[in-house]
Amino acid sequence: MTDFTATRALFHIPPGVIYLDGNSLGPLPLAAEARAARVLRAEWGDRLIRAWNEAEWSTMPARVGDRIARLIGAPPGSVTTGDTLSIKVFQALAAALALRPERRVVLSDSGNFPTDLYIADALCAALGRGLEVKVVAPEEVADAIDESVAVVMLTQVDYRTGRLHDMAALTERAHAAGAVTVWDLAHSAGALPVDVTAAGADFAIGCTYKYLNGGPGAPAFIHVADAHANVAQPILAGWFGHDAPFAFERGYRPAPGVERMRVGTPPIVALSILDAALDAWEGVDMTAVRAASIRLSETFIREVEARCPQVTLASPRDPYARGSQVSVTHPHAYPVMQALIARGVIGDVRQPDVLRFGFTPLYLSEDEVVRAADILADILATGEWDQPQFHARANVT
Amino acid sequence: MTDFTATRALFHIPPGVIYLDGNSLGPLPLAAEARAARVLRAEWGDRLIRAWNEAEWSTMPARVGDRIARLIGAPPGSVTTGDTLSIKVFQALAAALALRPERRVVLSDSGNFPTDLYIADALCAALGRGLEVKVVAPEEVADAIDESVAVVMLTQVDYRTGRLHDMAALTERAHAAGAVTVWDLAHSAGALPVDVTAAGADFAIGCTYKYLNGGPGAPAFIHVADAHANVAQPILAGWFGHDAPFAFERGYRPAPGVERMRVGTPPIVALSILDAALDAWEGVDMTAVRAASIRLSETFIREVEARCPQVTLASPRDPYARGSQVSVTHPHAYPVMQALIARGVIGDVRQPDVLRFGFTPLYLSEDEVVRAADILADILATGEWDQPQFHARANVT
Repeated sequence: MTDFTATRALFHIPPGVIYLDGNSLGPLPLAAEARAARVLRAEWGDRLIRAWNEAEWSTMPARVGDRIARLIGAPPGSVTTGDTLSIKVFQALAAALALRPERRVVLSDSGNFPTDLYIADALCAALGRGLEVKVVAPEEVADAIDESVAVVMLTQVDYRTGRLHDMAALTERAHAAGAVTVWDLAHSAGALPVDVTAAGADFAIGCTYKYLNGGPGAPAFIHVADAHANVAQPILAGWFGHDAPFAFERGYRPAPGVERMRVGTPPIVALSILDAALDAWEGVDMTAVRAASIRLSETFIREVEARCPQVTLASPRDPYARGSQVSVTHPHAYPVMQALIARGVIGDVRQPDVLRFGFTPLYLSEDEVVRAADILADILATGEWDQPQFHARANVT
Repeated sequence: MTDFTATRALFHIPPGVIYLDGNSLGPLPLAAEARAARVLRAEWGDRLIRAWNEAEWSTMPARVGDRIARLIGAPPGSVTTGDTLSIKVFQALAAALALRPERRVVLSDSGNFPTDLYIADALCAALGRGLEVKVVAPEEVADAIDESVAVVMLTQVDYRTGRLHDMAALTERAHAAGAVTVWDLAHSAGALPVDVTAAGADFAIGCTYKYLNGGPGAPAFIHVADAHANVAQPILAGWFGHDAPFAFERGYRPAPGVERMRVGTPPIVALSILDAALDAWEGVDMTAVRAASIRLSETFIREVEARCPQVTLASPRDPYARGSQVSVTHPHAYPVMQALIARGVIGDVRQPDVLRFGFTPLYLSEDEVVRAADILADILATGEWDQPQFHARANVT
């Protein structure tokens, strides 16, 4: 069994904090500090331009990609890193649509993260061949897959409720109807076992600042299945996705495989920090993480339901039907969360009424989860949340 | 007059190195190290998710953008930062094309950086309304601007030769023909005085890892002229460009002004390092930088031409017709540069035969430039470059 005491020691968790927001921004891995110092002084500072070769900066997107590949069941060489998730959604969807030029529908669901839908809307409008984004309820996706659908584009775990799609079943259904799949793994990678290969996912994308602890705005990743990797024509034809970036040819020739999904100059400092963050996953078995995550979330639900009649569970009750988060609703979610944060329990809010809590076994213990529920119960029972300072709004992430 | 002795002390220049490649990757600003350590520990580490508000991460793209705005003659609030230059080319060109829906030609030149042309080719193919990218010789651009041209897309300073376009004159010509302009300032920002406002540039973009010393793969910037800033419909409709990112609305509503050119979650660590790098520009007068850069490059040309008959000047001889670099050609440019680097003089090579040297007054002295020319003369006169280790190829950036 994975020793999560050992992994917890790899992170900086401030004293007095119970961190239940690793599903939004993972905490600082201690290794990131030394690595950042090194990439600045010993690589950039001392080697200057030579570091592209001598510090192997040029191959970093692929090397970091391979470390993520292991966590999502992708073969080595099928994942690259860089840009943001929004950009990777755009690239994956454009490449997927190009595989089905005769079809007109991008099918998604109302549980998808809004930026995925915004990106899809704008891409479809730009491509201008009668494309439309069709959004159905999450439970209606399977039935909505028909032969008009070019691409089924879904986020596996719903950011609000934690509801988990069956990636393998929906992909099979999509393929049976001749559609291509784009899976957003933002709330899956590092949260639960994912196997894009077994599921037959065509494209998969994700961010690394949540469960992978890569830091605020850390680089995103993209996986392209082997069948498409040498076929996809990048809509973002940047020089680092060229087969020979430094030949400075007039024409774009995509690099072999997923490397064509690189765009501009890779963000080396950010990739170095992400690389250090991924050290925490070495030797970690995702099945053990999932088991521990379920124990934590089940404990939390049990404790909250026993002691907090003021809130309602908004996540699926079946732990196998949700990701690694638990959401509950309360009519005054915002001030309740501010009161929790003031007591050191950090989760977040999704409007209008969702209190969201993430469960991350690498650095979170059963005892902390019980204490968090205890503090929530206290805040609700005493009405402690109903003070002016907890109602004051800021931009909340 | 700007005291460049003071600014030199702000950078880490390794002992024994004469750095003539700041036009490719600027050196490490010492302030970046403390800032990186702070953003990791005191912001990400200690504040966790709260840092988006408490450490003002959310407004960082605009705040850093404002500091760049000053260097390119753009008004406050008209520049935002993030992504890579390739992405910003894509956004700017798409927005520019949308302003001229009835026209079909993107006009550029053969001196443009290849990725700009790759991005334009792929965008035009994707938009599929008969758009074409027309590439002419740099000196033919003015005459090629006619009423078929939707967008004139140029890089102000040629990455190979340093040749400088007259931004104001070409923009005026473009506007007279009813075309929109996209100016790539990759080799201009921080290299010479730029005034996008006086020139009437519609869109301007650039990278920050060259003269602005933001680090390898540092975030890019984009400026949109006021006239277009509330009109442009982003083709990359990411949530951070939404008017209310955390309202999680179904539909995309662009943020006011240039902020709509934000896409995904901003890269906070990289932006923090860039912000620290920009400290070196505080109080620096770009006119003084330009005067010093011309002194340095004129000295270099004089010394090289006097002592190195083996090379030929490839940059314009008129210093006002070039940016802040000098290129010379030699049939064995690659091994010559490797021999120079082995002697501590770092420039770079552009295939097939260009030796490229950048002049960056913030941290480069007249004495160093004379010594660099001296070493080049020695390497060429003795044939020192013609040794096996200098012919061995690596990926060169």
